[in-house]
Amino acid sequence: MPCSCTASPEAIRITDITARDGFQSVKEWIPTEIKLRVIDELIAAGIKKMEIASFVSPKAIPQMSDAAEVTAHVVNNNPGVDVVVLAPNLRGVQDAANSGASEISYIISASSKHNRANINRTHEESLDDLSAIRERFPDLKINLSMSAVFGCPFDGEITPQQVLWLLHEGMKRGIDSVSLCDTIGVANPRQVMALLPEIKAAAPSLPLALHLHDTHGMALANTYAALQCGVTCFETAGGGLGGCPFAPGAAGNAATEDTVNMLHRMGMQTEIDLGKLLIAVNTIKQTIMHDLPSHLAKARSYSEFCFCRF
Amino acid sequence: MPCSCTASPEAIRITDITARDGFQSVKEWIPTEIKLRVIDELIAAGIKKMEIASFVSPKAIPQMSDAAEVTAHVVNNNPGVDVVVLAPNLRGVQDAANSGASEISYIISASSKHNRANINRTHEESLDDLSAIRERFPDLKINLSMSAVFGCPFDGEITPQQVLWLLHEGMKRGIDSVSLCDTIGVANPRQVMALLPEIKAAAPSLPLALHLHDTHGMALANTYAALQCGVTCFETAGGGLGGCPFAPGAAGNAATEDTVNMLHRMGMQTEIDLGKLLIAVNTIKQTIMHDLPSHLAKARSYSEFCFCRF
Repeated sequence: MPCSCTASPEAIRITDITARDGFQSVKEWIPTEIKLRVIDELIAAGIKKMEIASFVSPKAIPQMSDAAEVTAHVVNNNPGVDVVVLAPNLRGVQDAANSGASEISYIISASSKHNRANINRTHEESLDDLSAIRERFPDLKINLSMSAVFGCPFDGEITPQQVLWLLHEGMKRGIDSVSLCDTIGVANPRQVMALLPEIKAAAPSLPLALHLHDTHGMALANTYAALQCGVTCFETAGGGLGGCPFAPGAAGNAATEDTVNMLHRMGMQTEIDLGKLLIAVNTIKQTIMHDLPSHLAKARSYSEFCFCRF
Repeated sequence: MPCSCTASPEAIRITDITARDGFQSVKEWIPTEIKLRVIDELIAAGIKKMEIASFVSPKAIPQMSDAAEVTAHVVNNNPGVDVVVLAPNLRGVQDAANSGASEISYIISASSKHNRANINRTHEESLDDLSAIRERFPDLKINLSMSAVFGCPFDGEITPQQVLWLLHEGMKRGIDSVSLCDTIGVANPRQVMALLPEIKAAAPSLPLALHLHDTHGMALANTYAALQCGVTCFETAGGGLGGCPFAPGAAGNAATEDTVNMLHRMGMQTEIDLGKLLIAVNTIKQTIMHDLPSHLAKARSYSEFCFCRF
C-alpha cells in the first residue's frame, strides 16, 4: 500500500513521505545527518509509516544518493516503524531489499504519456518489470504508486477506466496495495467522490491510500472528500515539501501538519502529536527551506490565534 | 447579506471583498487609482457583487480614508454591480449612504469578548445601534457580518447556541442577510456541516453567505462542506489578501481565484472568467503585495501544468 489500516473511519493513518517525495524535490544537497534528524523527529511525533528514500540512479537524482544509509538507519533503529522506499526497477528493488526495506513503492502513471515522460517506459514495459519484481521478491510488499490519476500534464483528463485498467493489471501481478496520486495537484472534491467508490468497489480488500498535492490549494478539500468515501490512509509531507521543479513557488505535497491539524479539529485520531510534529517542521524550515508552503508553517503557531480587526 | 441568490446549487455567487477586507489589511498606503484599477479588473472578470470599502475613522484605518471616493466610482460607473460597504456605526452608515452604497455590512462578533476587542462594544450596544440604523435607514440593505462564528481568539469554542442567539437578535431588528465569518480561520468541515443546517433551519428564507479564512489551509475544504449544505454564496478576496496583522505571513481570506478554480473544476457556474480574474490578481501582485498567499498566484498559471519527476 501505504497503509494496511483496518481501523474505524475515525482513526486515520498518515504515511509521511517527507524524506522521499519532499527531499527529492530539493535541489541543494541535504546532509545525511539533517535527513536523519528530520526523520527521527517525525518518528518522535508519532509517525508509524514513512517513505524515506528513492533507490534510483544517483546521477538522475543526486539528493537520493544516500538512500541505503538513510534506510538502514531507520530500519535498524525503529523496529516499530514501517519503512517504505521507492524503487523504479529491478536493480533499485534489489538495493532496497539489501538495505532492509520491507516495502517498496513502484510507480506507474495512469497516463501512458506521463509514464513515458516520467520513467521512460511504456505501460507494457512497466507492467513486465512489475511481474519480474514480484517473481524475484515474493516476500516484499509492493505498493503500486499510481501517478497522474486525477489529471495528466500531457493528456489532460484521465478517465476512471484508465485507472481501473491499471489497477487490475497491478492486482494480476500481485500488488499488496495502491496509492492514488494527484501528481500535479488538480483533483477536485467531486472527482474524488466519483472515483474512489469505483476503486473501492473494484478492489474492496486492497489497501488504498491517497497522495494529494496542494498546487491549487485543494489538498484538504480532497482529503475531506476522501474521508467521506471511507478512505483512511493519506500520504503527506512535512512542511508541504515536494511538488514540482517546473513550477517554482507552487505548493507541494499535502502538508502532514495541515492534514493532521484538520483531522484533529474534526475529532479524528492519528496518534500523531501535532506539537512534536511542528518541531520536525521547524527543523525543515531552519535547515532546508525557509519558505515552506504549508499553512501551519506560516501561521506563527498552530495553537496561537490572532486578534483580527473587523 | 452578501448574496441574494436563489439560483440552483450549481450556480455559485461570489462576493469579492478584495477592496475592503483585503486592502484593509495592507499597511502601506494603496493609491486610490490602484484600488480602482483592481476593482475595475475584478468587475471585468465578471464579479457582480463587491464589498469595496469601510466607512470607519481614517485615524483607526488610514487605508480606508478614500472610502467615499472609491464607493462613488463604483456606484456611478457600474450600475450592474451590487456595492456593499462596511459601516460600524450610525455615522459610518450615513457616510456610506451619502456615497451611494445600497447595502452595508454591519459587524457583530458571535463572541462577546471578541466584539469588545474588535469594535469596543457589548453585544447590547451593538444591537441597539443596529436597531437605530434600521430605523434611520429603512431602505438600506443590512447584512449582519457575524465574526468569530467558528472560533474566537479569546473564548475558544463558539457554540451553535451563541450563533443562533445573535442571528435571532439580528432578525428581530430587520437584517436582510447574514454572513458567517471564520475570522481566524479555524473552522473545520465537520463543524461547517454541523452548524450550517441549524442556521438554515432557523432562518430558511434569510440569504446566507460564508466568509472563510485560509489561515490553516482549510478554506476550500470548508467551502466544499458548505456546498454540500446547499450554501451558494461565498465572500472571498483576490490573491487571498486579508487575514490578520498579528499573524504576519499567515494566509488570509479564501482566495477568489482558488475558490473559483475549484468551483469550475467541480463543474459549477460562477459567471466569472478565471483568466480575466488572474489579470486582477496579477495587478495586486505587481502593485500591492508580491508574495500573495493564494495558490493560483503562486502556480505559474492556472492552466499550466508541470511535469513532475516521480
